Amino acid sequence: MQQAANREAFAARLRAVGEARYHDKHPFHRQLHGGQCSMTQVQAWVINRYYYQSRIPMKDAAFLSRCEDPQLRRAWRNRIEDHDGGVDDGGGIRRWLKLAEAVGLDPDYVASTRGVLAGTRFAVEAYVHFVREKPMLEAVASSLTEMFAPAIHANRIAGLIEHYAFANDSALAYFRQRLNEAPKEVAFGLNYVLDHADTLEKQDASVAALTFKTDVLWSQLDVLSHAYVSPGLIPPGGWDGREGVIS
Amino acid sequence: MQQAANREAFAARLRAVGEARYHDKHPFHRQLHGGQCSMTQVQAWVINRYYYQSRIPMKDAAFLSRCEDPQLRRAWRNRIEDHDGGVDDGGGIRRWLKLAEAVGLDPDYVASTRGVLAGTRFAVEAYVHFVREKPMLEAVASSLTEMFAPAIHANRIAGLIEHYAFANDSALAYFRQRLNEAPKEVAFGLNYVLDHADTLEKQDASVAALTFKTDVLWSQLDVLSHAYVSPGLIPPGGWDGREGVIS
Repeated sequence: MQQAANREAFAARLRAVGEARYHDKHPFHRQLHGGQCSMTQVQAWVINRYYYQSRIPMKDAAFLSRCEDPQLRRAWRNRIEDHDGGVDDGGGIRRWLKLAEAVGLDPDYVASTRGVLAGTRFAVEAYVHFVREKPMLEAVASSLTEMFAPAIHANRIAGLIEHYAFANDSALAYFRQRLNEAPKEVAFGLNYVLDHADTLEKQDASVAALTFKTDVLWSQLDVLSHAYVSPGLIPPGGWDGREGVIS
Repeated sequence: MQQAANREAFAARLRAVGEARYHDKHPFHRQLHGGQCSMTQVQAWVINRYYYQSRIPMKDAAFLSRCEDPQLRRAWRNRIEDHDGGVDDGGGIRRWLKLAEAVGLDPDYVASTRGVLAGTRFAVEAYVHFVREKPMLEAVASSLTEMFAPAIHANRIAGLIEHYAFANDSALAYFRQRLNEAPKEVAFGLNYVLDHADTLEKQDASVAALTFKTDVLWSQLDVLSHAYVSPGLIPPGGWDGREGVIS
């Protein structure tokens, strides 16, 4: 049996997954952050990405539901709290709906998830199922795309402010807040994976889990682009560019 | 509570789902059957569609695993038998690999499912999960896209023979055999759904299940087209147009 890589080499292997295939490299993000998206394309992104946001607390609840260690549950639970927030004030999901309003969408329409592309649903549900079914180590490893998120959020905030009139503080609150929340989650998740992947086989499985998660993110932008950018073929049931638009 | 539609009206509602959104209407199929696909595009289709074929017996096993009625299990089991066949002779899956060979692909490469697009996996796995998790009526209803399959298979056989040199009897055996198998499965599945959807709510759920399944099929062609037709952006991990090509 081959030996496990040491902690630093294994961490570098995980980071290399992001360098090779994190969705900051997808053409849609370059368009979005460079100001080349029409408002309809921005709206389509907000509608579809909401589906991902809406499933994150369900994904984390699936994780908690399988987690026998109360200390791990305590540490993980804040992810649900960050996204759902309190009954009165809400959290990340409600901040995403502020972005929806800012780009001229009815937040109730967005929250209904009607018009979300089937391909978006399939990719996001694959993530929920993965966390529900795979070994805990792989479930944690799949969350590590957050290692690469602060850079894309910082780029996004700067790009949206530069190029789009809607990009005020309320619209961008989701991303700014994630810049505060993500580093703590990343540190915890990364340490967990570095500690628990104590064989090469587990390291390989962790890398595969993180790769899977980059596919989940990339695939969402592929189906979005196919429907609303090029060739612009909206599949049956997909948002038509008009429903839920209020301004 | 609104009353259930009668048998004929409900059957017409199910058929209307196919008329509106079965994947025979997808531009990729028009290209494929009209001879406008390059061999690389045909190969990409064969590689990705294999993933769907490979999961059908697992989907049907998930169905059997939840089915308490031995008579229903007996009637349903032939679907696994048709696709997997015997240890020596094989079935639909092995016939699909004959098609792979005919279009110049190494069948072992295709069977490995390396290079299958992430979006293909997500759509197909969504189907397997659906059948594993939903009420039995909806699981059966989701199979009813087979009502619309004979027409597309007949078109495909004619179109491939007319336009592509590879289209001999061995290459097309999968489709010809499905023309024999599908009508029996359709008759059974349709009768089951017509018999068991005895409230409007169950009829609505059956229509939604069939709609979901059309999304599973349509989405596969969307991700295939995005990667290999227009804009031709192959996602990370997707088949590169070369691996597994033997002629």
